Amino acid sequence: MPSQLAPVTLAAIQQPVRADLDAVFAELGRIVRSDFPMIEDVNAHLLRIRGKLFRPTLLLLASHAVDRATSRKLTLGACVELIHVATLVHDDSVDHSVLRRGQPTVNALFSHQIAVIMGDYLYSRAMIELVNLGDLESLRIMSRVTNEMTVGEMRELEAYDALDYSEEAYHRLIQAKTASLISGTCEVGAVDAPVEQRQALRRYGRLLGMAFQITDDVLDYTETERVTGKPSGLDLKEHKITLPLITALPRMSVAERAAVGTLMANPEPSDAAVAAVIAIVQERGGVEAARSRAQAYAEQASAELTAVPASGARDALGDGITYAIERRS
Amino acid sequence: MPSQLAPVTLAAIQQPVRADLDAVFAELGRIVRSDFPMIEDVNAHLLRIRGKLFRPTLLLLASHAVDRATSRKLTLGACVELIHVATLVHDDSVDHSVLRRGQPTVNALFSHQIAVIMGDYLYSRAMIELVNLGDLESLRIMSRVTNEMTVGEMRELEAYDALDYSEEAYHRLIQAKTASLISGTCEVGAVDAPVEQRQALRRYGRLLGMAFQITDDVLDYTETERVTGKPSGLDLKEHKITLPLITALPRMSVAERAAVGTLMANPEPSDAAVAAVIAIVQERGGVEAARSRAQAYAEQASAELTAVPASGARDALGDGITYAIERRS
Repeated sequence: MPSQLAPVTLAAIQQPVRADLDAVFAELGRIVRSDFPMIEDVNAHLLRIRGKLFRPTLLLLASHAVDRATSRKLTLGACVELIHVATLVHDDSVDHSVLRRGQPTVNALFSHQIAVIMGDYLYSRAMIELVNLGDLESLRIMSRVTNEMTVGEMRELEAYDALDYSEEAYHRLIQAKTASLISGTCEVGAVDAPVEQRQALRRYGRLLGMAFQITDDVLDYTETERVTGKPSGLDLKEHKITLPLITALPRMSVAERAAVGTLMANPEPSDAAVAAVIAIVQERGGVEAARSRAQAYAEQASAELTAVPASGARDALGDGITYAIERRS
Repeated sequence: MPSQLAPVTLAAIQQPVRADLDAVFAELGRIVRSDFPMIEDVNAHLLRIRGKLFRPTLLLLASHAVDRATSRKLTLGACVELIHVATLVHDDSVDHSVLRRGQPTVNALFSHQIAVIMGDYLYSRAMIELVNLGDLESLRIMSRVTNEMTVGEMRELEAYDALDYSEEAYHRLIQAKTASLISGTCEVGAVDAPVEQRQALRRYGRLLGMAFQITDDVLDYTETERVTGKPSGLDLKEHKITLPLITALPRMSVAERAAVGTLMANPEPSDAAVAAVIAIVQERGGVEAARSRAQAYAEQASAELTAVPASGARDALGDGITYAIERRS
């Protein structure tokens, strides 16, 4: 792949829709605005972080690719990002996370109570905007996806401490937790396109989302906090079972499995214990196996794009796949 | 009022729509169903409690009163109740409450994490159903109201420990927290009625909701746990400032105000301290003043019903007002 020569940056993918993305971000600011000071404080914190706007990028590119880009897409892009942020705010609260993208989470900076309420606030604001657009199809997709994400969160509670957690259960989990929203995002971008293009972009989004989440889980085994903005080895520290560990486990020696079991039995595993298990997972090919699973999803995602006419936007969607699996944060 | 001779029971108000209410409850069970075991466990707990179904009762009565009762109303009634329950699940989690209607809360029985996720699950299920009905007006009302409730929850965080909390702030709080959903419920019941009837029922719901919440706050000063299903004096114990205290404060002696201040300064006030402040609030007419404010809202609510043609359903809506202010739990 050419990207192995020159890495695909998010900025390059966003280049064809840069002006639109700024408009999406402005729209987002408009939608969340409140006359209640505490809500505005949280909004200011969240808007300061801004985030990568990866989902609005995909939505805009999808709508350009099917030649259906309208000003409504700016609001839709803002709503999708808002739903994503609302989910992160609740997830961080549920997980008691203190850092996200190198910044304090809402529960850490304000309180757990405020995080629960703000997640509801942001989500219901997005719903109000989708209703105002009068776009029942996008509403249908987004409400279904939001519900699927809550099921994903519930599934995630099962993925703690469970050394018998299956690869199949993991795929179901990341489908619900991550791929559902990215899939819905791409479908909403193409909601008024011919049905075969809309369906292809829905599948592209799902496959991209699977590859994206596996890569996220791999990064926890391979990158430092300085690069990702959150502590490395965090999943292991929190006893969260992800694909690198799942694929490495059957290849481990008895002693190595015992080391993993000991870590899982310790409510506060030491950095040394986490580093030791990371080394075992790497040696036993867990990272390699997870990466090649992500690569397989990436290739399937790429194949879906053939249903869409050739264009700069379609090329950028293709680069989005490379970015998803090659990024380091 | 005749109700002072024979108290109005909820069962009597529900009598004209009893069969419909059973259908609403069945519909609710259908909507929340999941193939994920943990979600079904929480659903079973919530359905076992069932609740009073006060909001679906109002929705059905409103739709009968404007002669627009259709089978869609059963789904709408279930959605309104679901949104209410989702809000309670999050509220209890935010407040760390352990009891609701004499039953353990979701956060107490399962966990705080599960309560946050389940609230999101139930709310998004309701949204999916509203979208399936294709009823943009009801969606508009419900998404607006849900957002208003989150602002109410945020306002409530300000109503702790604040001895300078104003009556005006209190009214804004209960408008957002309680009256908004009851108002939206009545409006959705009459959503396809002539506009003046729809608006009258929206206002009726708002006024009824204000009276309902003030009565709730009064009951915390007057009733025992055996009757209400939650500990009495709980608001004071949690340092929550409500109308009886707000209206009594300016009439208190310096020593009495000091007793209130001491309670608020104590993170875990004793039952004796709570009982002493309850007695002061009662002696200084706080309960009386709050009751008469509820009565005033009740009379305004009653006046709104004249815009609706006379019928058994309209009478039941009138009885709903009496019930709201005279109930003991």
